Amino acid sequence: MKAEILSTGDEVLWGDIDDSNASWLSRRLRESGVDVTRVNCVGDDIDTISDVMTEISTRCDVVVVTGGLGPTSDDLSAQAAAVATGDDLVLNQMAFDSMASYFARKGWDMTTGNEKQAMLPAGATVMDNICGTAPGFFLDYGRARFYFMPGVPREMKAMFERHILPEMDARHPARKSAVLCRLTVFGLPESKTGHKLKDFYENFPGMRLGFRASFPFIQVKFGSDPFAGEAGWVTSEKMAEAKAWVLERLGRFVISTQGLSMEATVGQLLTQRGQTLAVAESCTGGLIANQITDVSGSSDYFVLSAVTYANEAKISVLGVKKETLNIHGAVHEQTALEMALGVRKKAGADWGISTSGIAGPGGGSDTRPVGMVCIGVAGPDGARTFTHTFSHDDRGMNKKMFAAMALERLRRELVLQPEAVNIHDDAVVA
Amino acid sequence: MKAEILSTGDEVLWGDIDDSNASWLSRRLRESGVDVTRVNCVGDDIDTISDVMTEISTRCDVVVVTGGLGPTSDDLSAQAAAVATGDDLVLNQMAFDSMASYFARKGWDMTTGNEKQAMLPAGATVMDNICGTAPGFFLDYGRARFYFMPGVPREMKAMFERHILPEMDARHPARKSAVLCRLTVFGLPESKTGHKLKDFYENFPGMRLGFRASFPFIQVKFGSDPFAGEAGWVTSEKMAEAKAWVLERLGRFVISTQGLSMEATVGQLLTQRGQTLAVAESCTGGLIANQITDVSGSSDYFVLSAVTYANEAKISVLGVKKETLNIHGAVHEQTALEMALGVRKKAGADWGISTSGIAGPGGGSDTRPVGMVCIGVAGPDGARTFTHTFSHDDRGMNKKMFAAMALERLRRELVLQPEAVNIHDDAVVA
Repeated sequence: MKAEILSTGDEVLWGDIDDSNASWLSRRLRESGVDVTRVNCVGDDIDTISDVMTEISTRCDVVVVTGGLGPTSDDLSAQAAAVATGDDLVLNQMAFDSMASYFARKGWDMTTGNEKQAMLPAGATVMDNICGTAPGFFLDYGRARFYFMPGVPREMKAMFERHILPEMDARHPARKSAVLCRLTVFGLPESKTGHKLKDFYENFPGMRLGFRASFPFIQVKFGSDPFAGEAGWVTSEKMAEAKAWVLERLGRFVISTQGLSMEATVGQLLTQRGQTLAVAESCTGGLIANQITDVSGSSDYFVLSAVTYANEAKISVLGVKKETLNIHGAVHEQTALEMALGVRKKAGADWGISTSGIAGPGGGSDTRPVGMVCIGVAGPDGARTFTHTFSHDDRGMNKKMFAAMALERLRRELVLQPEAVNIHDDAVVA
Repeated sequence: MKAEILSTGDEVLWGDIDDSNASWLSRRLRESGVDVTRVNCVGDDIDTISDVMTEISTRCDVVVVTGGLGPTSDDLSAQAAAVATGDDLVLNQMAFDSMASYFARKGWDMTTGNEKQAMLPAGATVMDNICGTAPGFFLDYGRARFYFMPGVPREMKAMFERHILPEMDARHPARKSAVLCRLTVFGLPESKTGHKLKDFYENFPGMRLGFRASFPFIQVKFGSDPFAGEAGWVTSEKMAEAKAWVLERLGRFVISTQGLSMEATVGQLLTQRGQTLAVAESCTGGLIANQITDVSGSSDYFVLSAVTYANEAKISVLGVKKETLNIHGAVHEQTALEMALGVRKKAGADWGISTSGIAGPGGGSDTRPVGMVCIGVAGPDGARTFTHTFSHDDRGMNKKMFAAMALERLRRELVLQPEAVNIHDDAVVA
């Protein structure tokens, strides 16, 4: 079963946003045993969309379309589908009712724009939207079944899982889904990660290996390849063998053998130990706290983060000594140490970690360049400090790297491997 | 001049990485007055790439191709171009010399794989790569000129700026760049925003209007359309007229007339007043601090954020009264008030804002449902508190909405319009 993806919308075509919908859909389709052969993106234009539909309709069995189902005048997918198929555009009562009940649940009024959203090609079958207003639909045209979904990622993903996957399962029950193992890697650049695993295919013919960089982490994915036929089917013994082989090569750079994020991994370790954490952030500016609190259940172990940008706040909230700041300045291991100890004490937590550094783009000097961070980790048995310098000019990348490094230092303590982390400075090349 | 983008590579097609090259190229091309009409992405397969080239060659004037120029066996762009055009693949001396000098500079040895990189279609003109090994090239095929660049973003961007833009400038000196106005909207869902502006095209024919939702904000973009010919050219009087028309319709929901983010807008207002800010966050978990510190220069006005997840931290760091927490609990206006007053005092800041709410997915009750947030704003002239309830189950969305609402409350104070914000609860529909 061959599939293509069609992303619509000027904001995607013009590069205002990355087409993350397409990459998400492509991964989910392949994992589900559907061969994605092409991704297409066009703007909000009826003729272009309908021309592309006609062109694709001869090439594949499944087309997943995103975008253009909203209430505004530049939402044109249903109209374009009607032009392509020659169907009339009619008020779809099921779509209208589904929207009306969504609005009723929320206590909102419908507008004429919303009514337009229920005008669908006569041959369309509605897929209701459980977390938004725009109903989706599918229709057959040429060789292909076209699935139309909203462009809002959350709504699109829910609709794909709820309607499209089950519908494809029903039509193609013999499809083989991929069996996958995911590892999270930190401290190695993608090129070095790839190099360490370069003999994978020789050792595990028929299996597939993939990398996905999400700075500063790399997710390594391997498993069965549903498109390799018999050769791609994998037994659980073979998977275990492949996992051991990969783990041996990546060693201490693997922070999660379940593909978890750094903050979820640290949260799991703290929960297992029944311990709590407090954070003192300067250069990371709340990013660590924000990452930790994105994990549901983090209130069980996360007590406090003090984002102390100003020196006065470091003194008054964390009890950093005035002399320390006078003698060493804010970006120094002694300051990081007092911040970590201070926030641990203030919060009554088992662990305190701290960051103080230069995220840039401005503010660097010869001795304290942009990309330099001091980290403190204070725990039940004492405290440690570290200094790292990364080679970015980018504020956002530095904040992410600093936050990851501070959590990695804590993780090392929690797994009782506090030895120097041999992080490659070029790990920053995502 | 019409352009298309062709991204090649299994890792892009399969969604292992987002196609950020395509969005970057599309923005740069449009800014330079080139009309991007379609983005295409295919995998590492000679026949597919050459078929797509043939197809595109009839549709547009410029095609920018990325990927497939590396030294390994899955780098197939030059071969595919030769198949499509019917050219022979020959050793291009200029490409070889350019690579040889790059290797010499780095002190590396060339491999046979590198030699393959210099095998180009006979009709190709080389574009040298100043920051990598793979030479680029261009050739004419059908109606279009095809520019082939490496997939590594850094190398691709340098080659585009150095070779492709000047080359296009020389060929099409009369190109017009776009003039745009961007507004940031908060408190209205996209559907209502679109509805308020539904007569735009009637009033301003030839201009372009677009919406981009980035929850919980909407960016409204309008301006000249360099691709609509004479009709799309816009005088500054016409732009001012359109801006006034849009502003009148969107009114108080416009938080920035320069398209700035909420945190940058608040930062601008604080800087103008020479005032400082401290934040006490519970349910937003550091998100407000992280947003504020993403703005370069925020250290001038941002003093402290105390992310007080635990009640003990609210008491010890912020001085919230124990009785307040006992009587009212953490999610209450009285608690939010004491948090805002406390953090303002602790930090010695001009303004203190606070959030306490239920981000979910768990933790809600009948009286304090998921989506409810209490906000405190304390300033030089006293303090105010507010309660809002949003209808999300999603933790991430609630955190974003709570953070935006707290900053909006502060922004209202700073622009001296502290009256009740008539936010639509369905503003949450991005």
